Amino acid sequence: MNPKQSDRRRFLKSGAALAGLAVGASASAGPLAAEPAPERIDDLHLYGERSHFVNSVRNGSINNPERRLKDEPNAFGLSTPLQDSVGMITPASLHFVVSHGYEPPDINPLEHRLLIHGMVDCPLIFSLDDLKRLPFVSRFYFIECHGNSTTGGLGGAARISPNATAQDTHGFTSCSQWTGVPLSLLLKEAGVQKSASWILAEGADASKHTKSFPLAKAMDDALVAYGQNGEPVRPEQGFPLRLVVPGWEGINNVKWLRRIDLVDEPYMAMMETTRYPSLRLDGKSRWFKFEMGPKSVITQPSGAHHLPVRGFYEITGLAWSGGGAIRRVEVSTDDGRTWKDAQLHDPVTQKAHTRFSIPWNWNGEEAVLQSRCTDDQGMVQPTMAELAKLYGTDVDYFRKTSQILAGFNAIQPWKVNRDGSVQNAIF
Amino acid sequence: MNPKQSDRRRFLKSGAALAGLAVGASASAGPLAAEPAPERIDDLHLYGERSHFVNSVRNGSINNPERRLKDEPNAFGLSTPLQDSVGMITPASLHFVVSHGYEPPDINPLEHRLLIHGMVDCPLIFSLDDLKRLPFVSRFYFIECHGNSTTGGLGGAARISPNATAQDTHGFTSCSQWTGVPLSLLLKEAGVQKSASWILAEGADASKHTKSFPLAKAMDDALVAYGQNGEPVRPEQGFPLRLVVPGWEGINNVKWLRRIDLVDEPYMAMMETTRYPSLRLDGKSRWFKFEMGPKSVITQPSGAHHLPVRGFYEITGLAWSGGGAIRRVEVSTDDGRTWKDAQLHDPVTQKAHTRFSIPWNWNGEEAVLQSRCTDDQGMVQPTMAELAKLYGTDVDYFRKTSQILAGFNAIQPWKVNRDGSVQNAIF
Repeated sequence: MNPKQSDRRRFLKSGAALAGLAVGASASAGPLAAEPAPERIDDLHLYGERSHFVNSVRNGSINNPERRLKDEPNAFGLSTPLQDSVGMITPASLHFVVSHGYEPPDINPLEHRLLIHGMVDCPLIFSLDDLKRLPFVSRFYFIECHGNSTTGGLGGAARISPNATAQDTHGFTSCSQWTGVPLSLLLKEAGVQKSASWILAEGADASKHTKSFPLAKAMDDALVAYGQNGEPVRPEQGFPLRLVVPGWEGINNVKWLRRIDLVDEPYMAMMETTRYPSLRLDGKSRWFKFEMGPKSVITQPSGAHHLPVRGFYEITGLAWSGGGAIRRVEVSTDDGRTWKDAQLHDPVTQKAHTRFSIPWNWNGEEAVLQSRCTDDQGMVQPTMAELAKLYGTDVDYFRKTSQILAGFNAIQPWKVNRDGSVQNAIF
Repeated sequence: MNPKQSDRRRFLKSGAALAGLAVGASASAGPLAAEPAPERIDDLHLYGERSHFVNSVRNGSINNPERRLKDEPNAFGLSTPLQDSVGMITPASLHFVVSHGYEPPDINPLEHRLLIHGMVDCPLIFSLDDLKRLPFVSRFYFIECHGNSTTGGLGGAARISPNATAQDTHGFTSCSQWTGVPLSLLLKEAGVQKSASWILAEGADASKHTKSFPLAKAMDDALVAYGQNGEPVRPEQGFPLRLVVPGWEGINNVKWLRRIDLVDEPYMAMMETTRYPSLRLDGKSRWFKFEMGPKSVITQPSGAHHLPVRGFYEITGLAWSGGGAIRRVEVSTDDGRTWKDAQLHDPVTQKAHTRFSIPWNWNGEEAVLQSRCTDDQGMVQPTMAELAKLYGTDVDYFRKTSQILAGFNAIQPWKVNRDGSVQNAIF
């Protein structure tokens, strides 16, 4: 943003002077951890680390009994601290993780293989070095757990707490630059037979996670990714190979990918039939649901943040859609009465987090901040009431049951109180 | 890339079958380091790490006496392993570092301040929290040491060794998504007086590094950055604040930024007058040189890589220019006799690394691989002979003296030998 000359001083004029504010804001916290010991400096020269003053971390159910699933107590989720995010890349160290009870397998990349077989003319086996010789693409894509923003997933009750952060409400989505070989290229090499209509992808983890989805998606934009944000895919994200299935529920993005089977029907594999169907209110499931809907969340200011003084704040957040690129984000600061278009920050690309921002002057009164996105297919992020209607119910149902269902992508409200505190206002 | 139907099997047909290759390539190296101990798993849940099988690291002069500067033995450089890079982002842990003998200062961000003063209407002091309330941009920008690709900098003689890697020849450049406040916005807040024509920027490091450059650049695209690749700027890169001066020599990108002084002339500060002028052959220096020229390097295959078999290889590399966006990259595989346009991978943005690639079938004979980029100002990366002419000399001069001067951006040749080994062919 390049403020015009006529806007000069508008940041200072609005509310408290920034320079004045600066003086009072210091001298609170001391060092949060020790400096690196001298003997560690060599290691840091090889591969650097962040400042010990930075304490933004993932959180989740593994050390938090109240967030455990009753019927799967070893499962754990680690969510991304979106309230601290800047730009549109999630650092690999902070990428969300959902695990059904296992730590990542320890795979030697030199020994790892990818098998493509089933309804193909010629089954193929690829080593990592083979794959790296082939044409590749590097694309920004978000991956989001279908349970993100719900109470049913590993976020649990924290999602509806007034004290929830953006990490608690929306932290099971992350965005990386993924580098790899288009799956379509590998399938063409193998020669897909006419009878094939679905693929079954399998991981090399302890649970042998398998997931099936239509061949058309595999031939469209799925990637066999070996790179994430400029380095090898992290172990938690599937090192050395992850299937990236842009815009579709996280469970399709098979980690530690070792096998792709060309088949002619969905496979009803364990996870896709047990934990990951999207339940309807009548108890039946919408099983053939893949695409994540348009969603956005204001990350600053957001739950548990504190506005120190009245005055200027650039409101910012993230928007994304499994349907395509974000075309528009509107922001309301008056509980939904009026909406203004936010600025979209480059890059604005298909099925990726898109950073948005809009200027705001806080007058010290109560305010409710909300964002609403629209994707390039014209899909608009719904209100809570609109989404409830889609489920054949109303907002009270969610309130009474304290349940927020899978696929939840309604507008997220944050309430700013007179004391500057910011709270989750979902209910 | 979406290979057309007619291209089916072209990767398999060209040279060795990939699937056959896979079987023989395994079972060489064992684990490179230990798995994480159980007690470390909690830490990894908070903030993840890469696989212990990944051993791509920075290298440099600190543990390598032959790369030390004779007149500044404590100075050290850490260069980015470009030969392992994918996409266009440099992981923050692998971003290059040039230091004149100091480790990064350990700055408490709550106590850090930025002062803007000198020829302004109203001097201002900003805390980090003040800055984060302001309008921001997130942009991909490369930062490159003006000594990159030379023998004079901290890369030293390794740059011209036949065994040099892309890290040895070009590793003092890196690319990040930087997030911060446009410096122009802060300067407008302070009110720049008509008499001001230059700025002096100062860091909070032990050497109090200072650098001056024209006000016009400060008002154009310079950033006061607090974010790097989605998290706070790393300590080695200036935590908590770095001045990012897109496309200009690295030394202008002042780390640990604490002061900006509006002045009316260049300041002849220590580093800008001693170590960082660009020497001419007559011993005089071209001091008012800021912008990095158009440059590219093939990263795969590159020095010290080994092609295991004849056949298909996607040649890939990086191109960048301080003058703007990359418009074109051409690649030659026959020692410069013929050139073909490479594909540019999105995003292709101003003053950022741009990933390029082009298919190649290696027939098992000797080959020399080169890349040549053109930016959107029409500036073309020069041959060695063209660059020598610019210096008023010829290629033999470089060879005889084993010297490669500052600002060197000539085309980089890699020689592929019949045994598949790849060597630096600069001389």
